[in-house]
Amino acid sequence: MARIGIIGSEGRMGHVLLEAIAAAGHECAGGVDRGDDVANLADASDVLVDFSVPGALKDNLHAAIGAGIPILIGTTGISGEHHLAIDNAARAIAVLQTGNTSLGVTLLSHLVAEAAARLGTDWDIEIVEMHHRNKVDAPSGTAILLGEAAAAARGIDLASHTESGRDGHTGARKPGAIGFAALRGGTVAGEHSVILAGDQERITLSHSAENRAIFANGAIRGADWLIGRDAGRYTMQDVLGI
Amino acid sequence: MARIGIIGSEGRMGHVLLEAIAAAGHECAGGVDRGDDVANLADASDVLVDFSVPGALKDNLHAAIGAGIPILIGTTGISGEHHLAIDNAARAIAVLQTGNTSLGVTLLSHLVAEAAARLGTDWDIEIVEMHHRNKVDAPSGTAILLGEAAAAARGIDLASHTESGRDGHTGARKPGAIGFAALRGGTVAGEHSVILAGDQERITLSHSAENRAIFANGAIRGADWLIGRDAGRYTMQDVLGI
Amino acid sequence: MARIGIIGSEGRMGHVLLEAIAAAGHECAGGVDRGDDVANLADASDVLVDFSVPGALKDNLHAAIGAGIPILIGTTGISGEHHLAIDNAARAIAVLQTGNTSLGVTLLSHLVAEAAARLGTDWDIEIVEMHHRNKVDAPSGTAILLGEAAAAARGIDLASHTESGRDGHTGARKPGAIGFAALRGGTVAGEHSVILAGDQERITLSHSAENRAIFANGAIRGADWLIGRDAGRYTMQDVLGI
Amino acid sequence: MARIGIIGSEGRMGHVLLEAIAAAGHECAGGVDRGDDVANLADASDVLVDFSVPGALKDNLHAAIGAGIPILIGTTGISGEHHLAIDNAARAIAVLQTGNTSLGVTLLSHLVAEAAARLGTDWDIEIVEMHHRNKVDAPSGTAILLGEAAAAARGIDLASHTESGRDGHTGARKPGAIGFAALRGGTVAGEHSVILAGDQERITLSHSAENRAIFANGAIRGADWLIGRDAGRYTMQDVLGI
Repeated sequence: MARIGIIGSEGRMGHVLLEAIAAAGHECAGGVDRGDDVANLADASDVLVDFSVPGALKDNLHAAIGAGIPILIGTTGISGEHHLAIDNAARAIAVLQTGNTSLGVTLLSHLVAEAAARLGTDWDIEIVEMHHRNKVDAPSGTAILLGEAAAAARGIDLASHTESGRDGHTGARKPGAIGFAALRGGTVAGEHSVILAGDQERITLSHSAENRAIFANGAIRGADWLIGRDAGRYTMQDVLGI
Repeated sequence: MARIGIIGSEGRMGHVLLEAIAAAGHECAGGVDRGDDVANLADASDVLVDFSVPGALKDNLHAAIGAGIPILIGTTGISGEHHLAIDNAARAIAVLQTGNTSLGVTLLSHLVAEAAARLGTDWDIEIVEMHHRNKVDAPSGTAILLGEAAAAARGIDLASHTESGRDGHTGARKPGAIGFAALRGGTVAGEHSVILAGDQERITLSHSAENRAIFANGAIRGADWLIGRDAGRYTMQDVLGI
Repeated sequence: MARIGIIGSEGRMGHVLLEAIAAAGHECAGGVDRGDDVANLADASDVLVDFSVPGALKDNLHAAIGAGIPILIGTTGISGEHHLAIDNAARAIAVLQTGNTSLGVTLLSHLVAEAAARLGTDWDIEIVEMHHRNKVDAPSGTAILLGEAAAAARGIDLASHTESGRDGHTGARKPGAIGFAALRGGTVAGEHSVILAGDQERITLSHSAENRAIFANGAIRGADWLIGRDAGRYTMQDVLGI
Repeated sequence: MARIGIIGSEGRMGHVLLEAIAAAGHECAGGVDRGDDVANLADASDVLVDFSVPGALKDNLHAAIGAGIPILIGTTGISGEHHLAIDNAARAIAVLQTGNTSLGVTLLSHLVAEAAARLGTDWDIEIVEMHHRNKVDAPSGTAILLGEAAAAARGIDLASHTESGRDGHTGARKPGAIGFAALRGGTVAGEHSVILAGDQERITLSHSAENRAIFANGAIRGADWLIGRDAGRYTMQDVLGI
């Protein structure tokens, strides 16, 4: 049983993190939200889980270093200077930073890379995702993450190979392109499919989230995995042993 | 057993029409391609099937009227004057004109209209289609046909309610919108899904074509159904009794 | 705004019914669980919603008749004598009894009947469902409900046309059969697909539930629809105007 | 350009193999069917492709050894003594034997093993397949091949963990089981989905074949890959570099 401290406990992830900690049989060491008590929280915790804001990141890393415990960072909107701070912290403690803590998406991204690398470029790659009606951008960050996994596996640059949002007279598909399509409607929590379409056959690799609990469950599994690790920077793929 | 005459027998549909006639136990009365012998063909036929070009349409209608037999028109690119000529011919003979002769798509379009009419406008409608890598336009004509069925059932205008090819910062989905997304890749003959996404539940109505034989099979079934009908203008929905 | 009384408010549906009443802008007139106060509850309500037990059904009907209000019955395990009691009550008040209050499933069942009736018997019907790992029977009641809709539309008896749970040397598919397959795993709330497979084309009609809130939402919509109706026995299909 | 000799050229695969050879820019060195001329065919070929019968296998291997060329064996119904003969031949020449020559299925089987190995046993594995109405056994050989890939990755025995053809009162799903379900209908060439269902999320890995040409295309790619290889026994996974 691990003592897990939550940074950002009042945010949209806070409630589901609490449920995930209980479901996994761990203990919540407490929660902070505007950073004041993060050092105290760190002292009472075996690992920190941070779903707060980029502006609090450096203080959170310092608190983890001060207490000598690992930290998992799921905060979004991380930029270059934050990555530098994470790299520095990772010389002293174990740090896992990720844009998607779902185990399923982490694995899917690995499978997509495998498929893209093994099949020839005559297999066309298409990525389609569906989210609820209130999502304001397209394609989803996870769709792009999957596209990047495919592009890296093929040794190409994603941006210059993207065909997104086809409409009107598009002409034939460009060889080697990676296509994106976005569906919006209802209350869908998140569905992603990567299609590899060859001559007369197709492989489809999909992930479906029933709700956002999966992001909390993956974060807690990642946090638990971090406890006792050597200093260094880790990813969700490391948690799965990929 | 019906004697079926093919106009446009050397086109991309000609070969599969011949196979469909044989498979259905009918007889091919012959085929013409640049129209010279269409009157002779009509005299030897119980029904004509026309998958040629719009420019030949009036001659084909005259030939059918001359022989007193019905005609099924699957030619694409039909415009206003052609529709007028068809309406005129339909006073003398039975004429069925359609943009899609597949029985499955015809039924799907009926089901989509039913669903759109019965469910409230808080059910968001999305249409996604996939076709082979060489298709040059998006969304497909069949996707638009399905969107029109949904729009008509809701009493709205499709063009002003279309959200097609989402990409970038789209903002939230507009209430009442009908969304379209197009996937391209491999050798896919044609797949269409209409999704109605409500609160916490979804209905998906899909059609999948293995190859273009289905268009020929539907045309032959429609042609057979036309034999002995009263003069008038019919649709594929009439063939299914919808 | 309607005053809705809940019978069975502590059961597995009680909590989600309360949320559905609030979400729809109605008022909960109260809840009872072992029937003592059902007459009082009826007096304070515009309509009753009953998700309790078959043994309480007659008392619940009497309470509704006494107060002169309609009642929606979603209780499962209803048998012949209960149906008789419902028929009798329906001479005095409006009663809606159903085994599935989801609007989506109600509509899907209508679409399945349409498709089965319009397409020839050379279109094979298969029904596949997926539910969570703890479900103990197969196929699901909803799958059977969908099969019955298809069978009725074709004028055949379901039981004598069922092929369920294929395994081993099955021989070729029997013409006219309706096939069932059951998938179990994870926490899936409920997914159903009805496939109509013809020559070279397929139609698939699917419903996906994100959670059981949809059953509560449909029940509340049905209850609201009942208010002010003439005495009689109704179904969820009546609510949708099918 | 390779010269490819076909053994079993009049069988159900012969015609599509010829087309696949032409499409890949190779040359057909000839075809034999009851084995008389297999030595002559071997002398005129760079590689042999055998889709004939088990009884001809030893003669075919001898012919390949005599000519010093590799051989790909797609014949089904191979038993223990045939495998022994293949092992012996593989000391002299390159031999690839497989039950499924599709590149897509080969890759899918690899991805299924990856997913099964990486995700915990709390992710339930279900395999569902659909084939045409004339298929006489269930589940398909390819479904079993996929199940074996999953079982091997988890270090369990497939036979004692199989739940196939659920029907009636099944009880809850057994932890660690691998489920199978078979759909039959229409003219479906072959579709397979492996579902890994966890808590609130699901991964689905699917393959869809439009027709049997893919088996010929994979065989020709495998045959081409064999030319110039060292003596040894290979699999389709080797062709993909897995």
